[in-house]
Amino acid sequence: MKLLLINPNTSQFVTEMVAAAAKTVLAPDVQLTAVTGTYGSPIVSGRSEDALAAAEALHLALEHAPGHDAVILAISFDSGLSALRECLDIPVIGMTEAAMLTAMTVAERFSLITFGYHARGIYAELARRYGLDARLGAVLSLPPLSDEQIRNPALVFPELRAMIEAEVHDHQAEAIVLSGAIFANIYEGIAPQLSVPVLNGVREAVGLAQSLVRLNLKKPLSGSFRLPEPKAVKWPFAAVEQAYQSPS
Amino acid sequence: MKLLLINPNTSQFVTEMVAAAAKTVLAPDVQLTAVTGTYGSPIVSGRSEDALAAAEALHLALEHAPGHDAVILAISFDSGLSALRECLDIPVIGMTEAAMLTAMTVAERFSLITFGYHARGIYAELARRYGLDARLGAVLSLPPLSDEQIRNPALVFPELRAMIEAEVHDHQAEAIVLSGAIFANIYEGIAPQLSVPVLNGVREAVGLAQSLVRLNLKKPLSGSFRLPEPKAVKWPFAAVEQAYQSPS
Amino acid sequence: MKLLLINPNTSQFVTEMVAAAAKTVLAPDVQLTAVTGTYGSPIVSGRSEDALAAAEALHLALEHAPGHDAVILAISFDSGLSALRECLDIPVIGMTEAAMLTAMTVAERFSLITFGYHARGIYAELARRYGLDARLGAVLSLPPLSDEQIRNPALVFPELRAMIEAEVHDHQAEAIVLSGAIFANIYEGIAPQLSVPVLNGVREAVGLAQSLVRLNLKKPLSGSFRLPEPKAVKWPFAAVEQAYQSPS
Amino acid sequence: MKLLLINPNTSQFVTEMVAAAAKTVLAPDVQLTAVTGTYGSPIVSGRSEDALAAAEALHLALEHAPGHDAVILAISFDSGLSALRECLDIPVIGMTEAAMLTAMTVAERFSLITFGYHARGIYAELARRYGLDARLGAVLSLPPLSDEQIRNPALVFPELRAMIEAEVHDHQAEAIVLSGAIFANIYEGIAPQLSVPVLNGVREAVGLAQSLVRLNLKKPLSGSFRLPEPKAVKWPFAAVEQAYQSPS
Amino acid sequence: MKLLLINPNTSQFVTEMVAAAAKTVLAPDVQLTAVTGTYGSPIVSGRSEDALAAAEALHLALEHAPGHDAVILAISFDSGLSALRECLDIPVIGMTEAAMLTAMTVAERFSLITFGYHARGIYAELARRYGLDARLGAVLSLPPLSDEQIRNPALVFPELRAMIEAEVHDHQAEAIVLSGAIFANIYEGIAPQLSVPVLNGVREAVGLAQSLVRLNLKKPLSGSFRLPEPKAVKWPFAAVEQAYQSPS
Amino acid sequence: MKLLLINPNTSQFVTEMVAAAAKTVLAPDVQLTAVTGTYGSPIVSGRSEDALAAAEALHLALEHAPGHDAVILAISFDSGLSALRECLDIPVIGMTEAAMLTAMTVAERFSLITFGYHARGIYAELARRYGLDARLGAVLSLPPLSDEQIRNPALVFPELRAMIEAEVHDHQAEAIVLSGAIFANIYEGIAPQLSVPVLNGVREAVGLAQSLVRLNLKKPLSGSFRLPEPKAVKWPFAAVEQAYQSPS
Repeated sequence: MKLLLINPNTSQFVTEMVAAAAKTVLAPDVQLTAVTGTYGSPIVSGRSEDALAAAEALHLALEHAPGHDAVILAISFDSGLSALRECLDIPVIGMTEAAMLTAMTVAERFSLITFGYHARGIYAELARRYGLDARLGAVLSLPPLSDEQIRNPALVFPELRAMIEAEVHDHQAEAIVLSGAIFANIYEGIAPQLSVPVLNGVREAVGLAQSLVRLNLKKPLSGSFRLPEPKAVKWPFAAVEQAYQSPS
Repeated sequence: MKLLLINPNTSQFVTEMVAAAAKTVLAPDVQLTAVTGTYGSPIVSGRSEDALAAAEALHLALEHAPGHDAVILAISFDSGLSALRECLDIPVIGMTEAAMLTAMTVAERFSLITFGYHARGIYAELARRYGLDARLGAVLSLPPLSDEQIRNPALVFPELRAMIEAEVHDHQAEAIVLSGAIFANIYEGIAPQLSVPVLNGVREAVGLAQSLVRLNLKKPLSGSFRLPEPKAVKWPFAAVEQAYQSPS
Repeated sequence: MKLLLINPNTSQFVTEMVAAAAKTVLAPDVQLTAVTGTYGSPIVSGRSEDALAAAEALHLALEHAPGHDAVILAISFDSGLSALRECLDIPVIGMTEAAMLTAMTVAERFSLITFGYHARGIYAELARRYGLDARLGAVLSLPPLSDEQIRNPALVFPELRAMIEAEVHDHQAEAIVLSGAIFANIYEGIAPQLSVPVLNGVREAVGLAQSLVRLNLKKPLSGSFRLPEPKAVKWPFAAVEQAYQSPS
Repeated sequence: MKLLLINPNTSQFVTEMVAAAAKTVLAPDVQLTAVTGTYGSPIVSGRSEDALAAAEALHLALEHAPGHDAVILAISFDSGLSALRECLDIPVIGMTEAAMLTAMTVAERFSLITFGYHARGIYAELARRYGLDARLGAVLSLPPLSDEQIRNPALVFPELRAMIEAEVHDHQAEAIVLSGAIFANIYEGIAPQLSVPVLNGVREAVGLAQSLVRLNLKKPLSGSFRLPEPKAVKWPFAAVEQAYQSPS
Repeated sequence: MKLLLINPNTSQFVTEMVAAAAKTVLAPDVQLTAVTGTYGSPIVSGRSEDALAAAEALHLALEHAPGHDAVILAISFDSGLSALRECLDIPVIGMTEAAMLTAMTVAERFSLITFGYHARGIYAELARRYGLDARLGAVLSLPPLSDEQIRNPALVFPELRAMIEAEVHDHQAEAIVLSGAIFANIYEGIAPQLSVPVLNGVREAVGLAQSLVRLNLKKPLSGSFRLPEPKAVKWPFAAVEQAYQSPS
Repeated sequence: MKLLLINPNTSQFVTEMVAAAAKTVLAPDVQLTAVTGTYGSPIVSGRSEDALAAAEALHLALEHAPGHDAVILAISFDSGLSALRECLDIPVIGMTEAAMLTAMTVAERFSLITFGYHARGIYAELARRYGLDARLGAVLSLPPLSDEQIRNPALVFPELRAMIEAEVHDHQAEAIVLSGAIFANIYEGIAPQLSVPVLNGVREAVGLAQSLVRLNLKKPLSGSFRLPEPKAVKWPFAAVEQAYQSPS
């Protein structure tokens, strides 16, 4: 089984963090390749960068997916998730989607923690869009991270741990989704210190992707995830234009 | 007051249809300019084309918004709506968002009709994402339209009318949102024949945009719709890159 | 365009506050007339006074609406809103309804602040009744206001501002609805000091009313907002009895 | 225990129908008195008549409640329910509220049937307002009833039975709420012919009222159902004005 | 009327507490018998003990229900409620179900308080399963109780009262459900000190059971609460096996 | 990795059907053992049998789980799922839970088909209890199956296929959950004939179980899924009593 991990952030070090996390949960017969965005934002952090990342994720997917069995979208806003899911004939799974779906198998109520204050509304909207908000407790945030903290998230462990345990005690969270591709490995370090499971999404997405490949569900011929019909779409990147000329 | 209508479909005739509808509801002191997408799909009809349209809408907005007081996003999937709303410091309103919000002021329950079967899930998701699904009845669809019907939607009036009246009688719809930029003018022709109000979204968006301009609400300094911070974003179009260098 | 603003509170000074706010958002071709309730409570503040205000609003509407193009119901419980919407053949828009619908175009999540503790449940119920509770964060309240504060709401600015910024920071509110007809002008004074938009509802209702008039949607012939059929209704006020004898 | 049944429809024959149904479920130590509205509509059938009925119900309650232990509001729109619940210091229960709450103890999903097409939206809104819509299936309607059918609802049994059994088989309804005060006795006749329980609300409200009296729960001193504070409310009826002068 | 109260906790003193509370709300023509579980946990306090309690409740019901008119399930997780409701041809009502349904007739929003931190998720899930979560505020908890406090809950009054009043003031709770069979009598002592009604569920269930008996609704012949068909079920207890051989 | 599949139906042929399906999706390093219930119903088909199956599933899990890495609960009502999830310190996943979670990764809206009419309410309640009902379309049912059809579900393919395609076309279902352990293998035969993916739950649960094992999330020390504390629980089966004496 060959998995393609797409990081539409343009930061290579994020891809490396994420791929390292991803590789900890592969079955023996599974290989994983990771690609990084060329266009867009180094670390996607808002709504408009999310829109650009969605287009770039689509570009990356149409160029790199051939030869793979499933795609993992390794960006915490799940930028472009439904676009890729429609456009490819292999399974595609988003990082935060996977974190939330998996959290529901270990907790009655999960809360989500991000960093910086302005992304909270994006995650709340994502949960509602997915129809998963009934199980989501709060969306909390650490203060904005410094560059050093982004490269070494362990620096925020102490305050993160206090925030998590308060949410567990005061508001009955039974699991925590720690959002952001940069946190892909953090819960290895912090998990043993916490009273509840912590999920980031990357590893959960890799787990679900493997499940989906083995299930071999049919690509829909109907509905909003069927392949597009051939069409003259104009786009700066040839891979995109060609994909619409002969979809799949 | 100067309004900018953005059509990220690349079909000029759609822009003309939509602009004509828009102009029927302008106050005496309001002018409207319309622009059409260069990149993307002629008529956006699925999830991946929606993602491309969002990026193109952002591109168009960053290039053309300066000098305007509000933006109307004239595409029925509201492609890129939240991206534009974050990135600009003037109000932005989406077509289907406006149709749904307005429908709630005239009806307890509204249903939505699109054409072609595969877009139904996109509208259902949009309503849930907006948190408006409690008032949405069914999402119905006409069969896929021919090119002739797309250019002259009046050809589908008889079957549309039958579908609407059945929904009104059998499932208590009290208003109908008739989705799709190509239907911007259809309800002028069909409205008098129906027992309930019919909304398309373009005119409703122009109405809400005027309201928002006069309200002069503060651009948020906090939350997911505040302006992005200056950032080195790479994108094929200079207007986008420059906007991220000095936001607003 | 002629708008009728109905204040079913019996306090004339409230009508004046509200009308002043309303007039700040009129298009050049729009005129606004305001009327005040004769029967009911000076400042409606609970559930039973709301029921009386609804009947009085209906009375006022049936007496004064002829010759107008739309009605703005300027009472923060939207008392009688659906009754007027059924009974008149012109658009009717409620103050808190308009605040909430408009807040959804500028914020992912909005919270609502009232004064006095016992009205919180009424607003929470209103949001759920409208199907808008998915986007409503908290319903908060200032302590009960003194008569002096009711006539000069600026006196509560400092504590209001602290409450708002705490809600923004701690619970991701992206806009605030500041409920109560007496706050119709407050946000002019307080808005520049806040990090998020603040809405009261009066101005938003006037904006939506203008939009609805220009849209010229059909009065429903079917459903719960169609005109009543002629009927021998007995009521202390002749205008009401006559309206039911020959509806519209 | 003394119960007061209030019918704010002005039709005495409806009060008699309803009181007869109510008396079938009284415990040995319970007496029931019924009063009929003087002002308003003979048979309340729409949103504006509902608003008038609410004010009249309040008037009746303030005049007749003293000396009783609980109030049953015998009108299927529950007109004025929350107003009475605030204004009186004894329990108040609504007919459709009681039908829905009771249906939830015998069925996973209940559907509601009314007569005439335009009231469907009112019931759907009522369920959402009460937060009970998750268990409500469809809101269906018989065609408008003739005067003869209103006085003798058994005439519609055959078509009602067919409608119910189709809803049970096709859409998994497990109970039916048959709305309308005029149906207070119908299910005695039709119940044995049906495969699921049928509820009207009058008898359920009488059952819940007896339960509430025996529970002797505290009248809230806080929140939206506490008693109003003394206030100079102006109203055409002395009983109302006096009640606000010295609440309870 | 003969009511059977089933306590599937195996603690006889809990049955006595609960039966004492139950007897305070019986009509003159009603008798109540109480039975205690033999198998299971002394005080059910988690998810797996709940599953055992459900099976034991079913066992007790099949053995003892004959000759009774309704069953009250006196365990705060409502363990086995839907199983009993299907299997018996008389009404069955759960304790927390009854508390929540009754709370909705006196409050816009109710919060629930339990003891010990790990049961909070169970109650939150119960409310959502019943479709009543729209009216539920918070689920709070006292610290775990000592054996002495379990036998004499009045010992926790002071901290309970502070918790309730904070929830009322800060988060607009208008009623409190105080969960746990051991609290069946506590609100007699604490109620007069509180500003809002407090419900435990036992007495509310007895009230609803009496209502259901007098309503005499039909046992469903269809749906998920119809009687099971005869079947060879194997179970350690003869009463269970025999019941499936000839249901009802 | 060693997986334990628990079938609390007492029919050995069902276990064999289910285990065969389960084995089609194992990674190379995974082994699966299956056990069948001794007590309970041959084919669990209603609410009370579900309660018995939950207790039996717990019994089976406590007896057989030691030495395994995860448990798959192979019964379509997910009987006892949360009980096992609390009581074991390895992941537990339910069949219908897994089907629904997985359906959400391939479809905007999924519908569920069962057989026999009375189980529909159970599945609807399950979806609401899981907080997944926003994405669930309809719950449909085939007529009750004959013994022959239960052993050879392919006999119902033609009518099943017609039902599915109608749901896809008329009500925008984008995936189908075909409930019931007996359908574990049916979609191998019917999938290629359908226009949308079909899921049964057994294979999806095995996929998710493998993912959860590789994720190695922490067993919660807090909340409703932490291990029970040692307790003297009385139960007919020694394995259950012993487990409560020394949990984990």
